[in-house]
Amino acid sequence: MSHVVLTSHPSQIFVKSLPILWGAKTPQERGPVVASLTDLTARNAIGVHGGAYSVYRALATSAGRLQNEFKPDLTNTAPAEPIGPFDSWRNPEKIVAIDPWGSNVYADFKDYFDKGYDIRPSIAVTKAHIYMPEIREAIEAGRIKQDGKIVGKKFDVAVTKMAFEPVWHLPGIAKRFGITEGELRKGLFQHTGGMFPELITRPDLKVFLPPIGGMTAYVFGPVENVADIKKELTCRVHDECNGSDVFGSDICTCRPYLAHGIEESIKTAQAGGSGLIVYFRKEGRALGEVTKFLVYNARKRQEGGDTAAQYFHRTECVAGVQDMRFQQIMPDVLHWFGVKRIDNFISMSDMKYDAIVGSGIQIGKRVPIPDGLIPDDAKVEMEAKKAAGYFSPEGAKKSEDLKKVKGRGLNE
Amino acid sequence: MSHVVLTSHPSQIFVKSLPILWGAKTPQERGPVVASLTDLTARNAIGVHGGAYSVYRALATSAGRLQNEFKPDLTNTAPAEPIGPFDSWRNPEKIVAIDPWGSNVYADFKDYFDKGYDIRPSIAVTKAHIYMPEIREAIEAGRIKQDGKIVGKKFDVAVTKMAFEPVWHLPGIAKRFGITEGELRKGLFQHTGGMFPELITRPDLKVFLPPIGGMTAYVFGPVENVADIKKELTCRVHDECNGSDVFGSDICTCRPYLAHGIEESIKTAQAGGSGLIVYFRKEGRALGEVTKFLVYNARKRQEGGDTAAQYFHRTECVAGVQDMRFQQIMPDVLHWFGVKRIDNFISMSDMKYDAIVGSGIQIGKRVPIPDGLIPDDAKVEMEAKKAAGYFSPEGAKKSEDLKKVKGRGLNE
Repeated sequence: MSHVVLTSHPSQIFVKSLPILWGAKTPQERGPVVASLTDLTARNAIGVHGGAYSVYRALATSAGRLQNEFKPDLTNTAPAEPIGPFDSWRNPEKIVAIDPWGSNVYADFKDYFDKGYDIRPSIAVTKAHIYMPEIREAIEAGRIKQDGKIVGKKFDVAVTKMAFEPVWHLPGIAKRFGITEGELRKGLFQHTGGMFPELITRPDLKVFLPPIGGMTAYVFGPVENVADIKKELTCRVHDECNGSDVFGSDICTCRPYLAHGIEESIKTAQAGGSGLIVYFRKEGRALGEVTKFLVYNARKRQEGGDTAAQYFHRTECVAGVQDMRFQQIMPDVLHWFGVKRIDNFISMSDMKYDAIVGSGIQIGKRVPIPDGLIPDDAKVEMEAKKAAGYFSPEGAKKSEDLKKVKGRGLNE
Repeated sequence: MSHVVLTSHPSQIFVKSLPILWGAKTPQERGPVVASLTDLTARNAIGVHGGAYSVYRALATSAGRLQNEFKPDLTNTAPAEPIGPFDSWRNPEKIVAIDPWGSNVYADFKDYFDKGYDIRPSIAVTKAHIYMPEIREAIEAGRIKQDGKIVGKKFDVAVTKMAFEPVWHLPGIAKRFGITEGELRKGLFQHTGGMFPELITRPDLKVFLPPIGGMTAYVFGPVENVADIKKELTCRVHDECNGSDVFGSDICTCRPYLAHGIEESIKTAQAGGSGLIVYFRKEGRALGEVTKFLVYNARKRQEGGDTAAQYFHRTECVAGVQDMRFQQIMPDVLHWFGVKRIDNFISMSDMKYDAIVGSGIQIGKRVPIPDGLIPDDAKVEMEAKKAAGYFSPEGAKKSEDLKKVKGRGLNE
């Protein structure tokens, strides 16, 4: 094998590597994030674009299918709707988990493109029409009208949607977790089994593109309404659950609650406001699906069966924690949209609520999932969560009663 | 910052690090994959469990929420159904992208657990009931019957489901791509921006857990039928498309085809065979969602509008390749189930077909998506794919006609 450089060091800072002044007032002062590999001397971040899909790109390059020197042709790819900039984009602490200037890179950093820098968007904004059977039902039941604008004749719903790659400003991320930047860098390196030695050797590089799943936002109604405090906003922040979101597993409320959030978003948009759904790739509370399925087995096989009283304990036995989603970095996407107030928050999660309110966004009404949408086997989860602090107008069950809320056995 | 070891070297092989004899006849001869971090001297693989979620685990540990010494309590987590072993599990080249012995680790490696090894499952097998509006429609239209066993009274469908983490045997992966192991290791390290220096410094470690999304399998009917060549098998291999699978975007056929695959799987299971759906986390042809949305914009804004004739070209301009899914490692999951023949293959993809047949599995009938399930705006994709080699009973359109197949503009 020819010589491979294992990591880089600050002594290797090149003239071409542009400074990043996180939180600066303009994109030019802030400087572009350069994480492409076509010119290693121009990089100013740790990690690469595409998150975990960089592993596939590495396969494509190794197998000779993709030229290493390939630069994207960004013609016609710019955002389908203008968004921002908002004050939050210029605040170094409001947004630390995405690059606020990551969507319109060709316009914002044209000078650098002209100089040959290979800058890539970390946010893409497009438009789509979506069709969901649950929304069709809502239309047929008369709860939503076909206005020919937001909701079409074929039961299709017009949306503007955005995909986000995580881009972390490490000092800001560390602060959110109440640890030092050094502790964060060391932890990220060691507890991933040694991913990215530059986390250790390049303390001068403050921006990291972690290889984790990103987010997708769906906006119903005019995008500019989202930031307008005078216009009503309905919002759900949803964490991925493939088993329910796609396949409709009845052990949880994920897809029914998501569909309810979309229905309420459409109603608010039709009434002159807007709706915002943010979908986070955090499968199984960010524990991953293998762990999730192991926990299902442990819940359903335990002595006394699957009960609300033991719901969280079983996850802790298998995973060591109840939840690894870290809602403290979630609100950044809302700040990217300039959200100041959520009138209708379609979530019962105290963790999400606390994170959003703690970040300076007001929340009006909290909207619980309608009882009729909770699948039978999901009552275990719902009652356990209410007992642990989830919002519920009628309050949580007593600890004795939690033992009575039971789910199906593994072979039923 | 206290001293951090940047990588390890073969001179540091410890007595506790167990050899892995990939393709050995029994789990004891093969040896367990030890990728946990509770005892670094016992590791015999590069990377860690949980794929990209290891980054969240690193955050949890850094923030003091998870003890680094935590070992999972695997009580009651074993597979809900016994599966295998099959001949393919003992063939070092049939399965190289998952650990065939990764599901029942506590039973298969009990001796090592007793000695204190922290071995973790990379495959989990559970049972569920799923509810999909499309299946309810099929029941109400009389295409599927409620038999009280596979399909229940509440339109729920009983499944056995498995989550898989990728576990790569690097020599086998390199062979699939026709490159040397050294080229693969160097490529994976360099083209990810320097992820896992052990890929370079530890040529003695042959197993790598890449931080990419895994797979989920859904089995309809008895699991043992899947491997039984005398029983009919319906199968769809589906690549994630969040925009369609969850939100029902009308620009592609992903969810409708998936739902059709599930309907056909249920029918085959009810007729005494079985159905198998494998869901791969390969968003946007493994290019990721940001790239996908950029391509949508480029397609819909190009001169002449969105046409089948330009469909693949626009992806190449933005991503450098048309597709990065690499179907050559996809069939491993099918071999894990002992599949020898697929009677009804619910896919038109020539890449998937070639990979499966090339791996030694027979395919009977190829089932195209019924015309009525193709959304209007998805006709561009469908005709472009047929022209590029996708299976279609009626054949592809001529190149002149491809220009006439048009999709919606960005602002329509």
